[in-house]
Amino acid sequence: MRANAITDDEVFARHEGGKLAVAATVPLAEPRDLSIAYTPGVAKVCQAIAADPSLVNAYTWTSNVVAVVTDGSAVLGLGDIGPRAALPVMEGKAVLFKQFGGVDAVPICLDTQDPDQIVATVTALAPSFGGINLEDISAPRCFDIERRLDEAVDIPVFHDDQHGTAIVVLAALRNAARLLDRKLSDLRVVVVGAGAAGVAVTKMLIAGGVTGATMVVCDSRGTIHRGRADLNGIKTELAEITNAAGLAGDIETALAGADVLIGVSGGQIPESAVAAMAPQPIVFALANPTPEVDPEMAARYCAVLATGRSDYPNQINNVLAFPGVFKGALAAGATRITEGMKVAAAQAIAAQVVDSLSPDSIVPSPLDPRVVPAVAEAVAAAAREDGVCRPDPRR
Amino acid sequence: MRANAITDDEVFARHEGGKLAVAATVPLAEPRDLSIAYTPGVAKVCQAIAADPSLVNAYTWTSNVVAVVTDGSAVLGLGDIGPRAALPVMEGKAVLFKQFGGVDAVPICLDTQDPDQIVATVTALAPSFGGINLEDISAPRCFDIERRLDEAVDIPVFHDDQHGTAIVVLAALRNAARLLDRKLSDLRVVVVGAGAAGVAVTKMLIAGGVTGATMVVCDSRGTIHRGRADLNGIKTELAEITNAAGLAGDIETALAGADVLIGVSGGQIPESAVAAMAPQPIVFALANPTPEVDPEMAARYCAVLATGRSDYPNQINNVLAFPGVFKGALAAGATRITEGMKVAAAQAIAAQVVDSLSPDSIVPSPLDPRVVPAVAEAVAAAAREDGVCRPDPRR
Repeated sequence: MRANAITDDEVFARHEGGKLAVAATVPLAEPRDLSIAYTPGVAKVCQAIAADPSLVNAYTWTSNVVAVVTDGSAVLGLGDIGPRAALPVMEGKAVLFKQFGGVDAVPICLDTQDPDQIVATVTALAPSFGGINLEDISAPRCFDIERRLDEAVDIPVFHDDQHGTAIVVLAALRNAARLLDRKLSDLRVVVVGAGAAGVAVTKMLIAGGVTGATMVVCDSRGTIHRGRADLNGIKTELAEITNAAGLAGDIETALAGADVLIGVSGGQIPESAVAAMAPQPIVFALANPTPEVDPEMAARYCAVLATGRSDYPNQINNVLAFPGVFKGALAAGATRITEGMKVAAAQAIAAQVVDSLSPDSIVPSPLDPRVVPAVAEAVAAAAREDGVCRPDPRR
Repeated sequence: MRANAITDDEVFARHEGGKLAVAATVPLAEPRDLSIAYTPGVAKVCQAIAADPSLVNAYTWTSNVVAVVTDGSAVLGLGDIGPRAALPVMEGKAVLFKQFGGVDAVPICLDTQDPDQIVATVTALAPSFGGINLEDISAPRCFDIERRLDEAVDIPVFHDDQHGTAIVVLAALRNAARLLDRKLSDLRVVVVGAGAAGVAVTKMLIAGGVTGATMVVCDSRGTIHRGRADLNGIKTELAEITNAAGLAGDIETALAGADVLIGVSGGQIPESAVAAMAPQPIVFALANPTPEVDPEMAARYCAVLATGRSDYPNQINNVLAFPGVFKGALAAGATRITEGMKVAAAQAIAAQVVDSLSPDSIVPSPLDPRVVPAVAEAVAAAAREDGVCRPDPRR
């Protein structure tokens, strides 16, 4: 199933001059068009918005444009490569936003990694956009930055490395459980990795029906439990919402008898640890390009295997989530992304393949055209249900 | 010559959903495309830029994208209407950038009017863009903001309300002088208005050959001269480079015997003052929509009249300058906009109509397709001559 190898020459040639352009959506064929789109006509629109700022979404592209914001501190698996080297990824993300969701997206790569400055900068430019997609910002800084931005601005803020991954993991786990005729609340889940994705996956699974008390999260020092003295703020929170038994030990200890392994660490998990899981386990080994569990080895033990790679079945790909999440949030005029909107997105993703479930098909293909409209509709409905939508000033 | 009246309904309908969109310039038709434009292929490009940051212009859209930045403090003639109400103007500007210059432009409307925060914010997001077009920021704050940004970032910064206007005024005055067989250095020029445009026009005319010592700039309190105790920093500078005779008095005093009146104030200048100018004067009355000098009245006295309006001859329109200025600066890899580049732009604009000069044709039409390529070429050449271009890392 592997795609044809891609050459470096091909990659660089495709990146010449970048991957994005801005297009005008109004004509400018004659002087009259100029007088409508620019002066003097535009002044009428400005005055209307000055009188009622909520009209900005009706008469500007904020109705459909998202900033893809990074500080370049945790880009792909490349680490802290800075804002300029991060830009090709953000442009790629903007391409995906447009192609999959019809959402306009502008890369904003920041020349600062100071959380206060990041929050101040994004808050200052927020009037220019309808939403903020945070991207590739390292943990644990990302948690605080997102929380503070969410409080500071009146448009949706969504750290995709956290919530995009978490939504698709929840969707996949719902379908894996259904396939195996298990209840989410009965599955004992181990999350290996306590970075951006690990933290968000843990919270999302609990919001989606997994029992937090029986979950165990591992970081590089082993299981996270209340007895550890070396936990930062977010890990202290994890210790409070998971591992009620206070299980202490390494990853192998955590996995003994576990039903589900979700790897979001990038490390390697030994065969003996997988072998010691409960029978017919579910393994999501999401590190890219090298999954935490060798897929060939995992296949000998697992009932269901998912990875982050496109060349194996069950790819856990954020593109199943973020275009539809923002499309739905923007369409509904949502001012934030609630837990309910994320759970609704996961349900909508899972629902696309629920009638054709197999161990090799627990999530839709990233190219499945049914996904984005279904996610957007579910997210918009959840936003209205959660009461986070701006009233439409023209109704 | 007036265009058909534009209705409010037409204006608002054209603004529904805004005037801009983002487009992908790479295909995404099959999974292979995704692997080139996004992961895993994009990582190669990121690594190359991380190793040599100057490659960012080769492989991202920074080679052709400008931020149109405002704080909404001085929008059109509407004043301080804030960032949201300013957005339709910035979108319109972006449309002009694209349609006239082929330059991609992204509106950035800032939710702060504090100069320190504006400088910090724009500095932080500079890696995302190839240039910064400042727009509709009130004077005198705009001077300091532009100067500090120009020092802080390694991409061109250009406050269009200042320099766009100044470039086109210089172009028009060169041609008016040529038409009347006068030398620029012999003309006694009065600038009425000491805001963003007035200051920049004064400096640009001096850079372009007008004699500063005989120029007089007026603000709302009359002529600016060294004897005044109420001058802020920029006006103190104007007092030093103009009005060597220290002429004190009102606008009428300044205009007595003057050859050129350039109105960039928005106030009204009485007929008696125009009548007292030298014979065959040149009047540029640029306030919009109401010129400082009534055009019908001015026509009785002037050899050449220009306004900011599209329904009279000789429209002084920034769109003659900014698309070509940025197109040329980006093409040359310029790190800033020098005085030489601005003078070159003015010469290029003037040159387009030099063979067909008449009192009704001292500047090209804003829709003249020859202007932008000529300006871009002249600006790029001047940038190379001034030694402000980044070396191309691939040569």
